[in-house]
Amino acid sequence: MEKGQLLYEGKAKRLYATDTEDVLYVEYKDSATAFNGEKKAEIAGKGVLNNSITSLIFDKLKAAGIESHFIEKLNDNDQLVKKVDIIPIEVVVRNIVAGSLSKRLGIEEGTVLPRTIVEYYYKDDDLGDPIINNEHIDILGIASEEEVQALYEKAQQVNDVMAPFFKEIGVTLVDFKLEFGRDAQGNVLLADEISPDTCRLWDTETNQHLDKDVFRRGLGDLTEVYKIILSRLGGQA
Amino acid sequence: MEKGQLLYEGKAKRLYATDTEDVLYVEYKDSATAFNGEKKAEIAGKGVLNNSITSLIFDKLKAAGIESHFIEKLNDNDQLVKKVDIIPIEVVVRNIVAGSLSKRLGIEEGTVLPRTIVEYYYKDDDLGDPIINNEHIDILGIASEEEVQALYEKAQQVNDVMAPFFKEIGVTLVDFKLEFGRDAQGNVLLADEISPDTCRLWDTETNQHLDKDVFRRGLGDLTEVYKIILSRLGGQA
Repeated sequence: MEKGQLLYEGKAKRLYATDTEDVLYVEYKDSATAFNGEKKAEIAGKGVLNNSITSLIFDKLKAAGIESHFIEKLNDNDQLVKKVDIIPIEVVVRNIVAGSLSKRLGIEEGTVLPRTIVEYYYKDDDLGDPIINNEHIDILGIASEEEVQALYEKAQQVNDVMAPFFKEIGVTLVDFKLEFGRDAQGNVLLADEISPDTCRLWDTETNQHLDKDVFRRGLGDLTEVYKIILSRLGGQA
Repeated sequence: MEKGQLLYEGKAKRLYATDTEDVLYVEYKDSATAFNGEKKAEIAGKGVLNNSITSLIFDKLKAAGIESHFIEKLNDNDQLVKKVDIIPIEVVVRNIVAGSLSKRLGIEEGTVLPRTIVEYYYKDDDLGDPIINNEHIDILGIASEEEVQALYEKAQQVNDVMAPFFKEIGVTLVDFKLEFGRDAQGNVLLADEISPDTCRLWDTETNQHLDKDVFRRGLGDLTEVYKIILSRLGGQA
């Protein structure tokens, strides 16, 4: 399938049309950004790693009955996905306190939560992706009550599959961000990517950060830790 | 009833014991604070005004069937209230966009919301009273699911009484903050105060700020506009 017109360029990916209406071409870039784009760098090999990791995870989820926009990995940097209209809500699932939750509630990073929690952030760079509640979603008109319920349930389902799966490979799933979209039939479908860019992943033994916090916090070589994740997932770096 | 031991001093009020176990003495201070205490001033007459306004509003609510901790106004600065354990959640009800909501969602101040919304903030000065959702409340263990439902419903009920009541006296109820507490029997009871310190009140004709934004934003003499509110409520300044 040919790469058509560039439709959208985000911080980490480019979307292209294909010759099939409902299918898009996703190209994973080598860009790393943090703090709403304030910190950025080009990191050779990052795109290849995230494309591989995301593809493996979406396949795992599919095998567990959770559909996503992912169709197939095409080559090093590219994959095919179903076209969806992204719902501008970042759905964050948290098992362990880290990052903004630690700051917001004054709870030490690493504290295991008594239960998994879900947060919604309004996907808007100009506003700095502010945290929002169900009533903000309603007045913004960005998702219906039924859709929000679907986001909530699907996010929990993804966690129910991913947390034990990562545990098996010696990785603690601390938290992660999901995005969803509406397909042509209006169904809510898991979309975007699931990678060390969008998950906090800690080595279960050492608590080593195996995710984008390595870049955010300047803790070392991002590709080295992403390679660890890919390798534990059974992929070839 | 005699003022006993000072139990608590907040930014705007002091609480004293009385000779009755379940009854407290509240003294309204002349202090004005904003931006989590960063801006502060002593404003002669503010305490008297807020004591009068709060007393009138709690009486109005009682007449409409909404109980609160308020028992009676004793004198210029003091009132008697039922003792409650304050639930550390600021319940904010919004009819019109203003203040932090305008910044959070990028919606112009003054925009009428398509529906009333309720927000929760974690009452913690050190954390800057962060906005929280129901799941944060759960993991913090600061209120049960049933209590949160009670807060939500009572907040809406207060709005349903106050908004039309203020409209009658030429005042638009833009938004307001409520606090609740648990009485000795564990019932959730409306508490704290309801005044131009805790409500945004705009003149319906001119949109003049008749509330603490006059102090926050340096728009003029706070007591002059609080006197307008008291006078429209039928009180004597």
